[in-house]
Amino acid sequence: MKTLRSAACLLVLAGSMQAQPGLAFDVNTGKAPTEVVIPNVIPVIYGSVSPTAGDAPLVLRITTLVTNSWFDAIAPYHPTAVGAYSNLPRQAPEAATDANRNVAIIYASYRVLNSLLPQHKATWDAMLIGAGLDPDDDSQDPNTPIGIGNLAGMAVAAARERDGMNQLGDEGGRTYNRQPYADYTGYAPVNSAYELRNPSRWQPAIVTSGSGIFRVQQFVTPQLRKTEPYSYDNPQVFQTPVPFASNASHRQAYRAQADEVLAVSANLTDLQKMTAELFDDKLRSLGFSALFASQTRGLSLEQLVQYDFVTNMAAFDTAIAIWNEKHRYDAVRPFSAIRYLYGDRPVTAWGGPGMGTVDELPASQWTSYLKVADHPEYPSASASFCAAHAEASRLYLGDDDLGWAIPVAAGTSLVEPGVTPQAPLAIEFPTWTQFERDCGQSRLWGGVHFQASITAGQAVGNEIGGLAYDYMMQLLSGVSE
Amino acid sequence: MKTLRSAACLLVLAGSMQAQPGLAFDVNTGKAPTEVVIPNVIPVIYGSVSPTAGDAPLVLRITTLVTNSWFDAIAPYHPTAVGAYSNLPRQAPEAATDANRNVAIIYASYRVLNSLLPQHKATWDAMLIGAGLDPDDDSQDPNTPIGIGNLAGMAVAAARERDGMNQLGDEGGRTYNRQPYADYTGYAPVNSAYELRNPSRWQPAIVTSGSGIFRVQQFVTPQLRKTEPYSYDNPQVFQTPVPFASNASHRQAYRAQADEVLAVSANLTDLQKMTAELFDDKLRSLGFSALFASQTRGLSLEQLVQYDFVTNMAAFDTAIAIWNEKHRYDAVRPFSAIRYLYGDRPVTAWGGPGMGTVDELPASQWTSYLKVADHPEYPSASASFCAAHAEASRLYLGDDDLGWAIPVAAGTSLVEPGVTPQAPLAIEFPTWTQFERDCGQSRLWGGVHFQASITAGQAVGNEIGGLAYDYMMQLLSGVSE
Repeated sequence: MKTLRSAACLLVLAGSMQAQPGLAFDVNTGKAPTEVVIPNVIPVIYGSVSPTAGDAPLVLRITTLVTNSWFDAIAPYHPTAVGAYSNLPRQAPEAATDANRNVAIIYASYRVLNSLLPQHKATWDAMLIGAGLDPDDDSQDPNTPIGIGNLAGMAVAAARERDGMNQLGDEGGRTYNRQPYADYTGYAPVNSAYELRNPSRWQPAIVTSGSGIFRVQQFVTPQLRKTEPYSYDNPQVFQTPVPFASNASHRQAYRAQADEVLAVSANLTDLQKMTAELFDDKLRSLGFSALFASQTRGLSLEQLVQYDFVTNMAAFDTAIAIWNEKHRYDAVRPFSAIRYLYGDRPVTAWGGPGMGTVDELPASQWTSYLKVADHPEYPSASASFCAAHAEASRLYLGDDDLGWAIPVAAGTSLVEPGVTPQAPLAIEFPTWTQFERDCGQSRLWGGVHFQASITAGQAVGNEIGGLAYDYMMQLLSGVSE
Repeated sequence: MKTLRSAACLLVLAGSMQAQPGLAFDVNTGKAPTEVVIPNVIPVIYGSVSPTAGDAPLVLRITTLVTNSWFDAIAPYHPTAVGAYSNLPRQAPEAATDANRNVAIIYASYRVLNSLLPQHKATWDAMLIGAGLDPDDDSQDPNTPIGIGNLAGMAVAAARERDGMNQLGDEGGRTYNRQPYADYTGYAPVNSAYELRNPSRWQPAIVTSGSGIFRVQQFVTPQLRKTEPYSYDNPQVFQTPVPFASNASHRQAYRAQADEVLAVSANLTDLQKMTAELFDDKLRSLGFSALFASQTRGLSLEQLVQYDFVTNMAAFDTAIAIWNEKHRYDAVRPFSAIRYLYGDRPVTAWGGPGMGTVDELPASQWTSYLKVADHPEYPSASASFCAAHAEASRLYLGDDDLGWAIPVAAGTSLVEPGVTPQAPLAIEFPTWTQFERDCGQSRLWGGVHFQASITAGQAVGNEIGGLAYDYMMQLLSGVSE
């Protein structure tokens, strides 16, 4: 519930960035992405996709497809642009108004959201009605904003329903009891949650909501590696260095990288803890940094759409390449390595919520500050997403300036509520480079990654951030694939 | 959310059985269990223990400890009774008023609930304030109702904090990052979710909330078999027959019992489906049948407490014995056996929500109508709980009459919303024997159990239902353990 309240607060923040609270959406002067669509999508993501918005592949695919639909919906109003999945008739210059763009954006979102999250149709209907639009208007007239929006959204939805992620749940020949997003590639972990047969390989963690039901993790969407990227053809080209220190036969290096995680855990600052929590939530970190930048830069509606699309697509395309590497190396997480190395022997580390640093902590009782995500360790997905996001931002915005400062009230930690931070603090990102670096390091602070994984993830993210920008520039110049 | 709404509706129903809506609780004429405590506990159980109230061992332990605290809180007002965990000074006959009993019941509940669910302290505080009582009154005067309630509740909480269920999360020598209700007995499944190495043994199922995160089951609280029962000493004495047909080397019998599950699945009626859903929810079935009976029988406050305690304790003690057998046999569930026997070959069965019966269903795509619970198959826990509940009810109430008819509106199924039942229907239980039988069979209808498991579970439940009644009669006669 804390997360939901927090989401609701952020939502108000996001809304207030563009809208006058209490006033209806003004189609002529408003910005539908931030005033209409995002405020409706965020609660659904927190409520029924990922309670902490930490399940990156699932969250990113939704945000990418929605922003893609915005891009495609306004392409016909641009002098040269084509959509990623549509090439609708170019509209006369006098039709290129924000009123038309807003209407097209909302209908495009409606079509994509009903494809991605059909169980929330009532929310999407209300979203349109709230904006003064008719959810039952299924016009396909390519020379009206409603028809353009519908066509653009339907094209994105159709192209992406079978992009490899198994959105429909029928991959692998399944007809009955379809299982959306289920693995169809046959991944099975080498280790069980109960036995670390191979200390170099990933071990699913045992997770609980705290009331007695325990469950074992499953690698989330291993099929992401087979999913269609936007900005390149083949994820195999983004190869990361072999994670030498995650190979337990390299005993000294294996131990050194685990010891580094313990040393960081023993010396966690409140700023590190709160930064780790920020970056664990992809909406609060990736999403809100983009909203902040678009406001401070005074981006037009058209620019806002382009910028949101390029940053989301950059992270999504990065995820595909990173999943390919995660699957290839299937590497061990710190919690398994630390138990393997030290068993019940004492280590010095963070001792759990409110316990601070403990000198004689049995290694088997150590846990990471952040909950560990449902996938193998190497490379770091979060580090790669932030690097892609930062690189796409630098390229689109033209410089490295960010200037984002996030005030954090005392005791607002989700991990240590009422305790951390002891005093109010601010998380500050003067530049995108700082944002990217702190994001990466925060995965070490959070105890869920080794250093090598962060560096490797950032390199892939930076590279694909550039490719995503190039791809969008191609679309803007009128070159479709 | 559907479940929560449904819980809220039932809550209103429960409240209206005893209370005038909108009126404050009358301590002289009201019944604190049904008017004050239950309406506060139910939403917490649905909200943070078990969304469908289907996780029986966890739900039953809460309801048993709470009703135990009621029993202990009013024992001093009885001519001869002692509490299960307290023997407080007997009060003068003129003090034996429902006003005093109600106050003692509420304070006892407050102490137990703060031990069991401390994260919901604000709810328990509000519960007392709503009843016109002071949550900060920690009197331990054994001659006032507040003191009696506090002492009785604290005694139950103290006795049960280390009853074997690992409520505090520190069993097995764990000091840091305690894990309430975690297994400390070292259970690990023979089969993985990915490979059925031994087709006679339990295989954890892969479960999902539907948005892309999949998790693997873990046997819930295997330590329940080591938990302290109320009404007997040693669960080993309740041995069930060896589940012959669950041994895959008995090929013909193994196949016959799996085929029976498929045949039932192929012929499911709306009444069977809705009955299966009813009994899957332990609050709606066990809890509300007891409330219904206490109302129709016109039980006094004292009788209501005794009856609620004996039925909950009967099911809880049964769970301990059943878990001992579940752990011993670690038996295969129907979904695994059906896949093992038939692979991708076609069978005739229910084809999933809204699909009805499908003639050429690949066996690997079959699923049970109900979701399968997090524990081995044999014996059926639900069948055993209903049998214990029915036997304790027959003994306490003096006959087999129930006369409970539950109206079910069209389309209110949680599994097939909007589809099932096609027309309104009523689920009717003229007797406790019918309730017990339909409950047991509903586990076969739901596809989660074989027939032998139901029969075996019912035998244990009937036996322990009788022991629980005897134990409470002892307490009422003043004999403590």
